[in-house]
Amino acid sequence: MLVVMKNDATEEQVQAVIKEIENMGYRGVPMPGAQRTAICIIGNQGPVESSTLLAIDGVQETIPVTKPYKLVSRETHTESTVISIGEVRIGAKEPVVMAGPCAVESEEQALTIADIVKKCGAKVFRGGAFKPRTSPYSFQGLGEEGLRILGKVREKTGLLIVTEATDHANLDVVEKYADIIQIGARNMQNYSLLRLAGQVSKPILLKRSFAATIDELLMAAEYIISEGNSQVILCERGIRTFSDNTRNTLDLSAIPSIKEVSHLPIIVDPSHAAGRREYVTSLSKGAIAVGADGLLVEVHHDPSRALSDGMQSLYPQQFEELMEEIEHLRH
Amino acid sequence: MLVVMKNDATEEQVQAVIKEIENMGYRGVPMPGAQRTAICIIGNQGPVESSTLLAIDGVQETIPVTKPYKLVSRETHTESTVISIGEVRIGAKEPVVMAGPCAVESEEQALTIADIVKKCGAKVFRGGAFKPRTSPYSFQGLGEEGLRILGKVREKTGLLIVTEATDHANLDVVEKYADIIQIGARNMQNYSLLRLAGQVSKPILLKRSFAATIDELLMAAEYIISEGNSQVILCERGIRTFSDNTRNTLDLSAIPSIKEVSHLPIIVDPSHAAGRREYVTSLSKGAIAVGADGLLVEVHHDPSRALSDGMQSLYPQQFEELMEEIEHLRH
Amino acid sequence: MLVVMKNDATEEQVQAVIKEIENMGYRGVPMPGAQRTAICIIGNQGPVESSTLLAIDGVQETIPVTKPYKLVSRETHTESTVISIGEVRIGAKEPVVMAGPCAVESEEQALTIADIVKKCGAKVFRGGAFKPRTSPYSFQGLGEEGLRILGKVREKTGLLIVTEATDHANLDVVEKYADIIQIGARNMQNYSLLRLAGQVSKPILLKRSFAATIDELLMAAEYIISEGNSQVILCERGIRTFSDNTRNTLDLSAIPSIKEVSHLPIIVDPSHAAGRREYVTSLSKGAIAVGADGLLVEVHHDPSRALSDGMQSLYPQQFEELMEEIEHLRH
Amino acid sequence: MLVVMKNDATEEQVQAVIKEIENMGYRGVPMPGAQRTAICIIGNQGPVESSTLLAIDGVQETIPVTKPYKLVSRETHTESTVISIGEVRIGAKEPVVMAGPCAVESEEQALTIADIVKKCGAKVFRGGAFKPRTSPYSFQGLGEEGLRILGKVREKTGLLIVTEATDHANLDVVEKYADIIQIGARNMQNYSLLRLAGQVSKPILLKRSFAATIDELLMAAEYIISEGNSQVILCERGIRTFSDNTRNTLDLSAIPSIKEVSHLPIIVDPSHAAGRREYVTSLSKGAIAVGADGLLVEVHHDPSRALSDGMQSLYPQQFEELMEEIEHLRH
Repeated sequence: MLVVMKNDATEEQVQAVIKEIENMGYRGVPMPGAQRTAICIIGNQGPVESSTLLAIDGVQETIPVTKPYKLVSRETHTESTVISIGEVRIGAKEPVVMAGPCAVESEEQALTIADIVKKCGAKVFRGGAFKPRTSPYSFQGLGEEGLRILGKVREKTGLLIVTEATDHANLDVVEKYADIIQIGARNMQNYSLLRLAGQVSKPILLKRSFAATIDELLMAAEYIISEGNSQVILCERGIRTFSDNTRNTLDLSAIPSIKEVSHLPIIVDPSHAAGRREYVTSLSKGAIAVGADGLLVEVHHDPSRALSDGMQSLYPQQFEELMEEIEHLRH
Repeated sequence: MLVVMKNDATEEQVQAVIKEIENMGYRGVPMPGAQRTAICIIGNQGPVESSTLLAIDGVQETIPVTKPYKLVSRETHTESTVISIGEVRIGAKEPVVMAGPCAVESEEQALTIADIVKKCGAKVFRGGAFKPRTSPYSFQGLGEEGLRILGKVREKTGLLIVTEATDHANLDVVEKYADIIQIGARNMQNYSLLRLAGQVSKPILLKRSFAATIDELLMAAEYIISEGNSQVILCERGIRTFSDNTRNTLDLSAIPSIKEVSHLPIIVDPSHAAGRREYVTSLSKGAIAVGADGLLVEVHHDPSRALSDGMQSLYPQQFEELMEEIEHLRH
Repeated sequence: MLVVMKNDATEEQVQAVIKEIENMGYRGVPMPGAQRTAICIIGNQGPVESSTLLAIDGVQETIPVTKPYKLVSRETHTESTVISIGEVRIGAKEPVVMAGPCAVESEEQALTIADIVKKCGAKVFRGGAFKPRTSPYSFQGLGEEGLRILGKVREKTGLLIVTEATDHANLDVVEKYADIIQIGARNMQNYSLLRLAGQVSKPILLKRSFAATIDELLMAAEYIISEGNSQVILCERGIRTFSDNTRNTLDLSAIPSIKEVSHLPIIVDPSHAAGRREYVTSLSKGAIAVGADGLLVEVHHDPSRALSDGMQSLYPQQFEELMEEIEHLRH
Repeated sequence: MLVVMKNDATEEQVQAVIKEIENMGYRGVPMPGAQRTAICIIGNQGPVESSTLLAIDGVQETIPVTKPYKLVSRETHTESTVISIGEVRIGAKEPVVMAGPCAVESEEQALTIADIVKKCGAKVFRGGAFKPRTSPYSFQGLGEEGLRILGKVREKTGLLIVTEATDHANLDVVEKYADIIQIGARNMQNYSLLRLAGQVSKPILLKRSFAATIDELLMAAEYIISEGNSQVILCERGIRTFSDNTRNTLDLSAIPSIKEVSHLPIIVDPSHAAGRREYVTSLSKGAIAVGADGLLVEVHHDPSRALSDGMQSLYPQQFEELMEEIEHLRH
């Protein structure tokens, strides 16, 4: 349930409502809006009796929330969320392109690619330092050394950094170096990690599991926000189906579906979905056309030598064309 | 295998090659191109010995075909196929929009909707006269009376007509009235119907089964073309997955995948995939952006009274906006 | 809706009810039971007003049917259906094993395999004469010559024959030679063929499409029964999923699910589901243990030379062991 | 690669091989067998040059390992693994039944159910103290208090205890109370947790993710074993498909597929797969018939009052029948 305050409600009145909600055995989370504050009741299993709340000064009305998620829902927060980091605004009109290699391999590699993607118009540099791998014997990333290189990329290029935290043990150090912390698809239902991500000070890029419904993705985001971190960017990266022409089937219907029920921004990763660079540009155009707030694209200056996922990394020339095509699409 | 003729090869030389292929126990299908003719060998299970063929006058080279399909493959036909019907060209630069109701319900309904979609820029009118239905007790369409109404729509509006043939019994009469004959998703592996569709004189719109891989769709098209009808338009309309935010998951990666391996045009049906009109416009934009050659969209002047699939039919106003958005996207 | 007659209702009373149903614009199908007759109303879209029906002499009560299917439902027919052909009873206590090659290749091959499977305890011989194939260039079966061979198998061994009809054109001749007519998975939603199958005099073996839900399978069976042929045997043969250890994922939960809502017998085809003979015996045991009424198993005297699906055909020795294991499981 | 030692190889010779492997930049893991020791080389990306290894005294041969996993593979460990805990042997002839409630709700509830399942023949008591939940607002289990109750169940009934660890923070305390530590389906690719599970002293019950292939499940087990804990029990619990008659589609083909390529025991959880108690007994029979080494079954003395998953919990009477049916099946 949502308790909507009057436009002129005071902070004391808001606190009085929260206290009453706690007396009822639940938690009250204030959701400040442009015009007025609403307070979301969480922790209840069934409907909540609203009469005592309506009697508190400053309360205008109570609104039932019909979805299993609350804090991520447009019912509780009608305006679309825009996440601002420096001058970059994710969820605003301009789509934001995040690009770079699958894994940070060396300082030289990272800086080379960063220069390329910056020149083409990317605003955020992506690169994995901690890599979740299906096999325990695969290259697991450079770890903290990779983060240090990412720090240097930011320093030299001014690009923002997005990189993945794979567990509780590296979340702190990733937070130190990254501007946006990625939670990967395989960890989308690692609730312990989601709760910790709800306690950090940086925005979270939460990737949809290849086996998750939209509701499950939104519930995962709800875990993060319910711990206090409301800066969550969602990411569609393909779902697992019988179809074998791509590694996963990119579900672009996720964009309008999420925009309909949630206020969170959502971007698209065409590279992991496709698994082949040949399809990345056209899927990127499709993503922007359906209304995605940005892209997460793999680019490598020499894909044939990439330590991981070379098949899907774009050549610099291809990335330049992709950026031009998207620019063209929007004007 | 493909036998490529020299640019100046004569018709007699082509016939000599075909005769030799028949001597080997296979069939030879000539594939005329802008520059030169190639002859596709079909019916062989394994590799074909090429030395006797190479010795025939006018033969330039032989090329192995690595895919299970041949006539639909870009290996045998490098230029993209454009299907021309009157002034409408499907597979050329301009995407072609086919729009109309799920089912023809009455002459008045059909003409009302046809006027709307024509005014907005659609070139082809869609509407089912024979409807394949999951339940034997559901409305099965008006049958031949529906076709007669479609004939009147063409006469009065000049729109081309696409409508579905559901079996051998109605294929002939559909051929009489339609400009494009649709083979529905559930019949995509009805090989008997595909063979018959290969013998008609009208282009075929072949919808991908919701459970078919791209290769299976192309093999279904191969059935049609191998019978002599090379005018096949493919249609992506969503695949069956675990994801429940839409009726089926629209697989837009099918567009670049098919364009890579086949010369056939491919359009997208966002209405059946979504199952809800709210997503049709954004999915349509995505489809055009990834490179689809057209759209198949459900529109009804009064969706709340539609006899079938009202949930996914656009209101006239929505269709007008869709057409504007697509126009905007392309310029 | 179901109109249940009193135990002592006369045929005239039953006819009066059917006539009244027709007056209401629907069809009435009598469902004779051991104790009393019920009449199923079909053709209605919404609820039916029952007062005039209840007023007719001999009517005991009316029962709403909550499922989209009616004639296949246990709500209208509580006792399990047993299909008797000669001395073979499908749907009774004893599971019935149908075995033989994927395709009939020659008289010698068919008779050799028939002798083997008969000796091991199979009651029905399977073998395709008309084969639906993904590729137009694959071996399509021996056609009517194959049926003639199957006729000889029955004559010489006394085994019943099950073989597939793939379209309207071969249904009649298949009916002439077969004891059970198979409708394959790809034709499960070929409604035109289903209607024709509802008009033949032989039992139908209806295979679940690899993309069909249980409800869709039952609706397909409803098509057949609504045309008058109530002898339908269902067959689970694996569904299409992301899992790649078998060709399709055998869904053994289909057995208890179908037994719960339908009175029809259901058997299992482990061979097509597995796609590899190594798993056929254990899946067969699983099928019998969950309660399947029989098995459809591929056996070949020399799988390495089989013209189709050799990978999944059991060697004679393996089939003998399978039959022993199943025998052991049941006693 | 596997380095197979001679039957009479000494411990010094084994150590010399391991040292040489380390010199090559890899790790060597000894796999003691009944007859002889083999040493598995892990950490290599491509083929390993074997000549220096073959030259070491005591080495009989080297065998390439063709699968991405090694320590879980039958290629490196041909005998099936049996995990012994007290008198219970998992992976031996007799299937082991683990039963109990979804969640531990109270001491009284746990002891009541434990008495029931013990009387019926279960050897292991299941019950969640830490519950991974899709919603942050759902009951998350009693936590350590739940573990204490499980400790009392073992003390009073002598049943072994299996319960889930959901993250690094509760793994230690779960290890203290449990006889078998469950890693749930959602954590199957939580590689950080898998590595920690590889360092505990108790057997691990690793559930297949509803979106994992067999290879991915085995790779997850490889993570655990590569850290030193070779006591891993796999568990099939249903995969996510389009089919909607059960919550997930139980993939019983996983049993023969895993037994073919791996030496690890595998059990089946029919309760979570079905999502409805009506199908649990027949799926349990199917699981045992295909060769599962045990079952994980939800039982509650009063399912209508269960705090979670009441729909799928068996009534005591149903569990008793299930145990009888399985007994019957095996003799």
